[in-house]
Amino acid sequence: MEGLGNDSAEPAVAAFDRVRIVLCRPSHPGNIGATARAMKTMGLSRLLLVAPERPIDAQAEAMASGATDVLAAACTVASLGEALAGTIHAVALTARRRELAAEPLWARTAAAEAAALTAAGEVALVFGNETFGLTNDELMLCPRWAQIPANPAYGSLNLAAAVQVLCYELRLALCDAGPPPAIPDAGHPASHEEIAGLIAQAEQAAIGCGYLDPARPRRFTPRLWRLAQRARLEREEIHLLRGLLAALRKG
Amino acid sequence: MEGLGNDSAEPAVAAFDRVRIVLCRPSHPGNIGATARAMKTMGLSRLLLVAPERPIDAQAEAMASGATDVLAAACTVASLGEALAGTIHAVALTARRRELAAEPLWARTAAAEAAALTAAGEVALVFGNETFGLTNDELMLCPRWAQIPANPAYGSLNLAAAVQVLCYELRLALCDAGPPPAIPDAGHPASHEEIAGLIAQAEQAAIGCGYLDPARPRRFTPRLWRLAQRARLEREEIHLLRGLLAALRKG
Repeated sequence: MEGLGNDSAEPAVAAFDRVRIVLCRPSHPGNIGATARAMKTMGLSRLLLVAPERPIDAQAEAMASGATDVLAAACTVASLGEALAGTIHAVALTARRRELAAEPLWARTAAAEAAALTAAGEVALVFGNETFGLTNDELMLCPRWAQIPANPAYGSLNLAAAVQVLCYELRLALCDAGPPPAIPDAGHPASHEEIAGLIAQAEQAAIGCGYLDPARPRRFTPRLWRLAQRARLEREEIHLLRGLLAALRKG
Repeated sequence: MEGLGNDSAEPAVAAFDRVRIVLCRPSHPGNIGATARAMKTMGLSRLLLVAPERPIDAQAEAMASGATDVLAAACTVASLGEALAGTIHAVALTARRRELAAEPLWARTAAAEAAALTAAGEVALVFGNETFGLTNDELMLCPRWAQIPANPAYGSLNLAAAVQVLCYELRLALCDAGPPPAIPDAGHPASHEEIAGLIAQAEQAAIGCGYLDPARPRRFTPRLWRLAQRARLEREEIHLLRGLLAALRKG
């Protein structure tokens, strides 16, 4: 394990700057502060808070310790969709299985993938509320799920401890990883907004032609999200599919 | 992710029971509680406290969350020597190099070594005071030092966060994390013919609405195939997409 060092120069600073940590509806300001500290120890600095239940307070600052700069620079937004604007990849940490799940990866594998994707654009690691985790609607927006291997009898990590483990794995992957393997013929990964735009257009088209009854949607939209995330859509494919949908609506 | 341990689960459980976590002179009872939680999530239960500055209190119990059993069973001793009685190996976590130091190992390497040594006897992971770390006399008692790879500009992990990372690495080393959990609700993978049927229908629809000129196909079909294969389409999704295409053609 070369180049991980506490003493060596920071590798790939630009890659670290393309990683955002997103906390969805955190309950305890202390955990927000502890998250800032966990991030900074691993070289990360971009913290986004989605609708925190309570604002940053003295307890948060105490738990941030030497990472009050990360805490002070944290952005608060209203929804996970806003937090993911501009990203090409997001990993949702989950302790539970959900019916709409894509296959979860272990934290180490998911971190390696996310690290490799920083070469292509911005990535997010997404964490849910301390008690309730992430909602199904939030999970739907994340192309990947990750699980931390844990005691089957008690797998409930503290929120900031889970952030620490994921950021640790990400640091190892960013420092270890060489350039990602070249994929011949690969296009540009689609952004969150591009995927959302395609799905919104498909919904409108489906309603317009009578295929989808908005009063009885029968999981049409979640199913499209699940498929789109698994497919790792590229921008050029979004163009093709949106063009086809538009032509079909006219034709 | 291969484990270093046995194939069967039983020896691994015994191995977990041969690991003790030692906190030397911790200042904050909250960190003792958070350590108990971090340990239990990774399957460890034996906590030793060397001369804690303050006793276990309500804050410690709050931070222990569902691991109050680990906290209640913690032993308090007067010196690190007592805490290491009966061990054959000890790993001291340190953030700093010391003049008397052997070269530290990275946490992952040190955890793998400690995990392997549980086959021979009891091992300890040793953590110092939040502010001052371990004394040179304490470090001297530990055959190994370990460092967590960290930001050279700010490498100060919270005590319980450092315990979480070490226990996580130890768990991975002690037992194969296994394949990701099966997804009960996953659909049936689509057959080749089902995918071919969808793509043929999309081609016909694209030609019918004027989006695709059969004389100048511009890789429309190869691009759909590439997308469909990457997406690992399920049968239910094929039905949804074919239904939508048919409705759009009529609408």
